[in-house]
Amino acid sequence: MSYPISKPYLITHSLLPENQETPIQFITSDLINKQFFYKRNHFPYPTFSHLNFWLPVNGLVKRPILLSMQEILQFPSKTVKAVLECSGNKRNLFKPKVYGVQWGKGAISQGYWKGVPLRSLLERSGIKEGAKEIVIEGYDFGKRTDQDKVSGYARSLPIEKALHPDTIIAYEYNHQPIPFKHGYPLRLIVPQWYAMASVKWIKQITIIDDNFSGAFQSIDYVYYPNKVNNQGAFPVTTIHVNSTIQKPLDMEILNTGMHKIRGIAWTGDGKITSVEISTDNGRSWSNAKVNFTDYKSYEWVTWSYDWEITKKGEYTIMSKATDSSNHVQPQIPFWNRKGYGYNAIDQIKVKVE
Amino acid sequence: MSYPISKPYLITHSLLPENQETPIQFITSDLINKQFFYKRNHFPYPTFSHLNFWLPVNGLVKRPILLSMQEILQFPSKTVKAVLECSGNKRNLFKPKVYGVQWGKGAISQGYWKGVPLRSLLERSGIKEGAKEIVIEGYDFGKRTDQDKVSGYARSLPIEKALHPDTIIAYEYNHQPIPFKHGYPLRLIVPQWYAMASVKWIKQITIIDDNFSGAFQSIDYVYYPNKVNNQGAFPVTTIHVNSTIQKPLDMEILNTGMHKIRGIAWTGDGKITSVEISTDNGRSWSNAKVNFTDYKSYEWVTWSYDWEITKKGEYTIMSKATDSSNHVQPQIPFWNRKGYGYNAIDQIKVKVE
Repeated sequence: MSYPISKPYLITHSLLPENQETPIQFITSDLINKQFFYKRNHFPYPTFSHLNFWLPVNGLVKRPILLSMQEILQFPSKTVKAVLECSGNKRNLFKPKVYGVQWGKGAISQGYWKGVPLRSLLERSGIKEGAKEIVIEGYDFGKRTDQDKVSGYARSLPIEKALHPDTIIAYEYNHQPIPFKHGYPLRLIVPQWYAMASVKWIKQITIIDDNFSGAFQSIDYVYYPNKVNNQGAFPVTTIHVNSTIQKPLDMEILNTGMHKIRGIAWTGDGKITSVEISTDNGRSWSNAKVNFTDYKSYEWVTWSYDWEITKKGEYTIMSKATDSSNHVQPQIPFWNRKGYGYNAIDQIKVKVE
Repeated sequence: MSYPISKPYLITHSLLPENQETPIQFITSDLINKQFFYKRNHFPYPTFSHLNFWLPVNGLVKRPILLSMQEILQFPSKTVKAVLECSGNKRNLFKPKVYGVQWGKGAISQGYWKGVPLRSLLERSGIKEGAKEIVIEGYDFGKRTDQDKVSGYARSLPIEKALHPDTIIAYEYNHQPIPFKHGYPLRLIVPQWYAMASVKWIKQITIIDDNFSGAFQSIDYVYYPNKVNNQGAFPVTTIHVNSTIQKPLDMEILNTGMHKIRGIAWTGDGKITSVEISTDNGRSWSNAKVNFTDYKSYEWVTWSYDWEITKKGEYTIMSKATDSSNHVQPQIPFWNRKGYGYNAIDQIKVKVE
């Protein structure tokens, strides 16, 4: 008797809009296959003509341009291997709990994105004096729960981030056209920033002379440290240093002997320099074996730690990553009302019997 | 531009053995399609010859018998529509947390099971005097974390439950051969009991004169009310009265206006007679509209409640089912060390803005 191979699936949080997370505990590949790439949507999937597709670059430009896919493909290309992490990743770990999609640890994926630097398009259009931000608008739109009018999904980048050579208008993921649900035909990829910046289904690029005030920039994707008012609010941008234990599983029952603890670590500010593991609830720490081979900025690193358990009992296992900018995962997460940027030391419990 | 329909997937808790739960929040059908039926395994999938398949009925029998699939199919058949619920369903809701697979609310599924009553086979073999229990052994086996030897999955039923006309040896699920991962070719179905009793891949049926002491009966699937010792332990059997809110989702953000709260309710002891809803954290309760049309024992009922929200704020929504044996979901779950039989009043929180 033979039977189908066991495989994980995306974990569904909602279907309309579609929000599904990567089964990150069961991922061993460095490149997330498109079927396991997490999906984060604010609205129903957009409908638009991809057969008659034109990308306008307008606003404070010297020459407004309208690019066909053929023209976009003729620019010199750039490929980046980058982590995309939803800023709501690990939201379900905040205490007190926070409203919104209850993402576990899997609102994160990585792979190769190929496209044209946004910079190249902006050089073609020219940037007029007084320009302050670049607005990227997607085709997706709908009604927000907090507003009566229809909004489109749009985000801006400051000029310097827009001109970074690795900020690209991508048309391929892992050497294939971007899957429709992940932004086909064009998706902005902003390495190092949380993925709300990586706008899908790009409809239009506009240079403006002000701070963009769209709802997904001025209401959502803002850290509100206060439960009841907006004091001290500031925007979500760079990915925080972070790590996730993939194995063993939380609340797993193990037996004595050798066990390999393994996981991933990543940051938006430089590169991971070390991952430390504690198997005694944070009293003592040891360095994990981090796989630095070919490791570049924007990517996650994999790590492992050989743990020999001789004594039965309950254990709390923790992982703590440090990056080259000396950011270290904090013991206490930075609580904020909308639940963004969770990056406290990762921890799980196991029982050995 | 068209795109694939959004669909949920099973939620993976482990791959070896394969444990995946039904995305119950996103199920609207009364019959769970095999692709959404939760999977609960203790061991790797078994290998055995289904081409040369024989089912022995032995032990304290008058005539040991060995049945081919053809012979089994010649017995008068019986079809039952029944809930199968893992006794670990909702385990992740226990406080303090309990070790083991962290099932959410989806270790439950239902559909039509067709087969031959176990009673018919036992009448063919005869039951000798002194018989006490019927042991059903599956083909699956492996090492438990708490033992060095290999065990097979096996469970017993008391004679009276084994002889109940709705306790069947099933060969079809929803009018098709049982999928391999759910017990092909033969699976015991014990309506009203938690699904550890519904042994998959039946290998052998044995009548014994004692209380069966297999690990999955004497160690697992036992309620241990005490965290540190086994005092007061008693076996897991009948499904507790229970309900699950499918919509809205926990921690969802809604707007004011009309919302339909909907869910399911079920019990192992009689039938559901009412489902009450509270939208004010349990201060007041109203009857949900329960769909009793064609509702029979062993099944879940669907229910809904129209909720008009006029005031913004945070709400705790609860559902509480009552059955015909006057069991009511308790406010406080019965905590037990291995985390079985969770059936406290279901509750979610939403924010209205």
